[in-house]
Amino acid sequence: MNVTLRGRTQHFRTVTFDAATNEVVLIEQRLLPHEFKLVRTRTFKETALAIRDMIVRGAPAIAGTAAYGLAQGARAFRGKNLPAFTAHVKQVYETIKSARPTAVDPVNAMNLVLAAMQPGEDVPTQQALALAAAEEFANQSVRECEAIGKHGAKLIRSGANVLTHCNAGWLAGVDYGMATAPMYAAQALGRKFHVFCDETRPRCQGASLTAWELAQQGVPHHVIADNAAGHLMQRGEIDLVIVGSDRVLGRTGDVANKIGTYTKAVLAKRHGIPFYAAIPLSTIDWNLKSGFDIPIEERHEEEVLGAWGVQTQNSKPEARNSKRTYIRIGNPTSPARNPGFDVTPADLITGIITPLGIFKPQDLWKRRKQLQPTT
Amino acid sequence: MNVTLRGRTQHFRTVTFDAATNEVVLIEQRLLPHEFKLVRTRTFKETALAIRDMIVRGAPAIAGTAAYGLAQGARAFRGKNLPAFTAHVKQVYETIKSARPTAVDPVNAMNLVLAAMQPGEDVPTQQALALAAAEEFANQSVRECEAIGKHGAKLIRSGANVLTHCNAGWLAGVDYGMATAPMYAAQALGRKFHVFCDETRPRCQGASLTAWELAQQGVPHHVIADNAAGHLMQRGEIDLVIVGSDRVLGRTGDVANKIGTYTKAVLAKRHGIPFYAAIPLSTIDWNLKSGFDIPIEERHEEEVLGAWGVQTQNSKPEARNSKRTYIRIGNPTSPARNPGFDVTPADLITGIITPLGIFKPQDLWKRRKQLQPTT
Repeated sequence: MNVTLRGRTQHFRTVTFDAATNEVVLIEQRLLPHEFKLVRTRTFKETALAIRDMIVRGAPAIAGTAAYGLAQGARAFRGKNLPAFTAHVKQVYETIKSARPTAVDPVNAMNLVLAAMQPGEDVPTQQALALAAAEEFANQSVRECEAIGKHGAKLIRSGANVLTHCNAGWLAGVDYGMATAPMYAAQALGRKFHVFCDETRPRCQGASLTAWELAQQGVPHHVIADNAAGHLMQRGEIDLVIVGSDRVLGRTGDVANKIGTYTKAVLAKRHGIPFYAAIPLSTIDWNLKSGFDIPIEERHEEEVLGAWGVQTQNSKPEARNSKRTYIRIGNPTSPARNPGFDVTPADLITGIITPLGIFKPQDLWKRRKQLQPTT
Repeated sequence: MNVTLRGRTQHFRTVTFDAATNEVVLIEQRLLPHEFKLVRTRTFKETALAIRDMIVRGAPAIAGTAAYGLAQGARAFRGKNLPAFTAHVKQVYETIKSARPTAVDPVNAMNLVLAAMQPGEDVPTQQALALAAAEEFANQSVRECEAIGKHGAKLIRSGANVLTHCNAGWLAGVDYGMATAPMYAAQALGRKFHVFCDETRPRCQGASLTAWELAQQGVPHHVIADNAAGHLMQRGEIDLVIVGSDRVLGRTGDVANKIGTYTKAVLAKRHGIPFYAAIPLSTIDWNLKSGFDIPIEERHEEEVLGAWGVQTQNSKPEARNSKRTYIRIGNPTSPARNPGFDVTPADLITGIITPLGIFKPQDLWKRRKQLQPTT
């Protein structure tokens, strides 16, 4: 999406590939919203580190990064020995896979690239096919997000107040985003609406990433404490909730997403406010039978007991070298619990916005032939 | 309650009076949990500033401070001229009243002290009566909290997991606290239980003050992000919710409290978890007809867009000169909404824990003869 730097507006994707230099180009997301900076990974090992160290995050974004990283590694091979090349590519694959061991999207993306390489009968052809497949994967990922936007935009009328949680925006995808896609599409249709961004403690991706995105696109918005959404719903100030998801169960329609999503869904139900999850098809898990089978990661307590930010109150978005500081907020002798995700049962969800349309969560299973990727 | 400093455990009240030096002695709450320090206000003007600048906060605590401040100001008068003394006391009263213009408790407390002074026929007698009345007010406030504890302790069985929000602890009262009083009473009865403290964004009074209190009293607890309570309730990890309140409507039982309270009450209702508010009698508003008539203060957006804390990750609770730092977390070009309080309707509240017993919120009005202070 568009980013304005020193008065000049440019289009960026979260992840792109520079074929001339064989580098993956990433937005350094750990510096946002205080600094906008691109990083170039020169080797597949650096690309794996970028995934591991959260320079790039969000399932579709790391999937695109992994696809490019595999092509990058393949293209770095010198020589014509196909078995040696294949062994090298296997090593690239394993290195990138191990960068985020619990994520399934990077692996699926790399499998697509690997499959596309197979018809190539020599090293240069396989290298060319790898790059073409990675580019196609990234482009297809963007088209999926645009399709999510097209379907979801129908839900956002002019005058609407939309609540979103965490960041399922273009920074979490290759471009355009998932939960934000309907917003950008509605904006393109000329609709005037307003977004509330839950700050999304403990890591505050809503306050830092989603708010930055919306500001860059000129979408009117306010950041709120996670505590405030219930009050705003009670006073009639929220009309619609759209969130992303880390995993939607195809069998039940249950939605796993960032901690606090379930709370917002319970509140929305009480107030009769429609609640949607916007996802690419790869987010649907067709195997698990119950939302309670989804393992919930317990993260480090320092996230809850403190926060990261920059010390200058007046930090400019374009300021350089804005150093992020950790401060301790909570009592130093108290422990914390920090579940990273929660599961929202299907009965609280109005619909799942997919690239193929909006479905009731309970209907995913009967539409599985349509929704399951053919790969 | 007890505080352990350099290995030595001592009892402190949030506010006391040193009659020998005519000073009000306060815990400097803005430094907690990173530093424990007492401050002494030498004049009633300094006492008013301590209220205004949030050295002391919480309705019962600032009421006690105001009562002592009025006595302090009265006792500073030199001379025997009763009309001049009365004019001086009036000025003291107005100065302290203006320190927190929206609070009703300090005014009520000072009115009690003023009334107690009236029988005195000369300046020294009125001065002595003022001090005695302020001491009696503070002691009565503590007795009320102890009575809240006695009634509320019945709700906390061994093995229970209790959730609380914000800080309605002893730091918000003269001593013992409101929402925490049942916990301290249950602990004294030998019951073993565990408390979850909502961090309570944006000001994080739960993570900083309630967690510090519970740690000092040796009550097992964990801090959680406000987003986590719903997930914990869903997994059966919370049995009971006890919060404080800024205002309970005597006519309806609606409860105004720190932003996020309403959200926790909605979640508790969904999960069949009992939800209580613990209050002194002065918190009941017998006039307002609807919770929606309670004005909700919109606070400064910097609270939502950042946080205060100390930079050392390993800050010791007894460390001196721990400097509090503000960091900006959110996007610098995004605005925030920051409602400070919300209103929980009576249908979500299991009971109101008062010094006179536990009442259904809908029953307050029919018990009003019993519950209304006779002053």
